[in-house]
Amino acid sequence: MEPITSKQNPRIKNLIRLHSSRGRQKQNRIAVFGSREILRALNSKLVPDELFVCLELIEQSVLDEVRSLVAGFDRVAVSIDKELFSKVCFGDRTDGLVMTAARPEQTLEAFLDSFDSQQPVIAIVEAIEKPGNLGAILRSADGAGIDGVIVADALTDWFHPNTIRSSLGTCFSIAGCVSDSVQVQRMLIDNNFQVVVASLDGAADFYSFNLTQKTAIVLGNEAKGVSSDWQRKEFHAARLPMLGIADSLNVSAAAAAMFYEARRQRK
Amino acid sequence: MEPITSKQNPRIKNLIRLHSSRGRQKQNRIAVFGSREILRALNSKLVPDELFVCLELIEQSVLDEVRSLVAGFDRVAVSIDKELFSKVCFGDRTDGLVMTAARPEQTLEAFLDSFDSQQPVIAIVEAIEKPGNLGAILRSADGAGIDGVIVADALTDWFHPNTIRSSLGTCFSIAGCVSDSVQVQRMLIDNNFQVVVASLDGAADFYSFNLTQKTAIVLGNEAKGVSSDWQRKEFHAARLPMLGIADSLNVSAAAAAMFYEARRQRK
Repeated sequence: MEPITSKQNPRIKNLIRLHSSRGRQKQNRIAVFGSREILRALNSKLVPDELFVCLELIEQSVLDEVRSLVAGFDRVAVSIDKELFSKVCFGDRTDGLVMTAARPEQTLEAFLDSFDSQQPVIAIVEAIEKPGNLGAILRSADGAGIDGVIVADALTDWFHPNTIRSSLGTCFSIAGCVSDSVQVQRMLIDNNFQVVVASLDGAADFYSFNLTQKTAIVLGNEAKGVSSDWQRKEFHAARLPMLGIADSLNVSAAAAAMFYEARRQRK
Repeated sequence: MEPITSKQNPRIKNLIRLHSSRGRQKQNRIAVFGSREILRALNSKLVPDELFVCLELIEQSVLDEVRSLVAGFDRVAVSIDKELFSKVCFGDRTDGLVMTAARPEQTLEAFLDSFDSQQPVIAIVEAIEKPGNLGAILRSADGAGIDGVIVADALTDWFHPNTIRSSLGTCFSIAGCVSDSVQVQRMLIDNNFQVVVASLDGAADFYSFNLTQKTAIVLGNEAKGVSSDWQRKEFHAARLPMLGIADSLNVSAAAAAMFYEARRQRK
C-alpha cells in the first residue's frame, strides 16, 4: 500500500485530534499509541477502526508479530510515512503503530450487569486528575481482583494515552464506568453496597471493615481527597493508619493497600 | 539585604550545580526547592547551609510563615532577584525559596543503630530509576511505620528534587541508607533478617509470611524487578497475587500493599 504522507489527509487530521480529550469526545473514538498497548487492547477484544503502520519504525524484535497483526487487520491497516508518523504519535510512543477504535461504552447499567460475583467489591475514584494515577489504580484493581472501577466526576479520561500506558492495558479489560458522584451514590444505596470512603480525619480504621461483603471503596482527588458529598450517614469514612510524619498517602498507593486488603479478606 | 542578581555569583553557580545528581555528589550537599518541602525538611532537623529567598515570589498565604523562617535563619539567608530566581529554581518550584544543606549521612552502621524496635521491618529498594517512585515508596513506608529504607545499587538519588517532593518530605525523617546489594545482603544475613523478595514467578504467596519477625522486604527495578543476586537459599521469593491480565504491579503500588500488610500483622 502507498503510504500517506500529508498532514492534510482527513484520516490523519482526525487521528491527531484524538490526542486530546475533547477530540476523543467529539469523535466518540479513542486512539491507542504503541505496539505493546495495541496488542493488549486487541487481547481485550477492542475492535480496531484503523491501524496506522509505519513499518520502517517497527522494532526488529516485534516486526514479525506486527506483520501478522497487520495482515490480520488488513482491511483497516493504513500505511503512513516516517516523517508524518512523528506528527501523529503521542509523546515517546514512536514505535510505528497507532490504532483507533470506537470508544467502548461504559454505562452504569452495563457495569452493574458485568459482575460474576454476588458480593462484588468495586472501587470508585472521584475526580482523579492525573492519567498516570488513574492507570496505576486500574492496574492495582486488576491485580487484586477488584470487580470493577467507576470514575466519578472525571477530570481525566479513562482512555487518555497515559492512562492506557500506566494501566498496562487493564483499562481495556476491567469492568469500568464513568458517571457523576450523585448518580453513583444513588446506585450504591439502591444496590445495598457497603460504602467505605477513604478519608483522613476522624474516620474508622480501614482494617476494621468486613470487605467480604458487597463493598465499594471510594478514593478521591490527589490534592483534596473525596468531596464532602460523600459524607453521608449511609457511608463509612475510613482511614489507613498513618504512623509517620506525612498525613496522607499517594492516592494510587492508598488504592493498592486497600484493594489488596480486600483481596486478602476474600481469599 | 541587597539581592544577588548575577548568575556568575559563586554561590549561585554552586546552587545551580545542585540540580544534578553529579553536582550534589561533588559538593556533598543537597538543595531543597519549594517552601512546603523546606518547611518539612526543617521539621526533620535538616540544618540549612544557605536559604535563598526571593520575597517578591512568596505566596501571600505563607508570607508570614516564610518571613519568620527567614528571620530564624538570618545568618544563612541570601536574597536573590526575581529574574535570577527563575534560573536557580527546579521545574515548577518557583515559589521563592530554595535551601541548601550538607547531605545527611546515610551509612549502614548508623542505619542499623537507628531502630527503636528489636524486630524491625525494613524495606530494600534495588535500582529504582524514577525519583517519583522512590519518593512514593518512602511516603508509604512512613505511613505504614516501616522502620527504615535502604536503597541498594541506586540509580536515582535519595535527595533528587522529585524524590523530595513525592516523598512529601519523608525522605528527611525516615531512617535511610544507600549501599550496594552485596553489602546489604551480607548485613541482612549477619543480622538474621527474614528476607522476603518481591518476585513474579514461582514464588510463595506474600501473605503466607509472618511479618511480625525481624523482616526485610525487597523490591526491584521498575522494568526488571530484583536482580538475580537476590535469588539465594537464605532468602524467600514472594509474590503478590495477580488475579487479572497484568503480570505485575507498579513498584510503588506493590510497596504500599506489602508495607501495609506488614503493618496489619504488627498492629
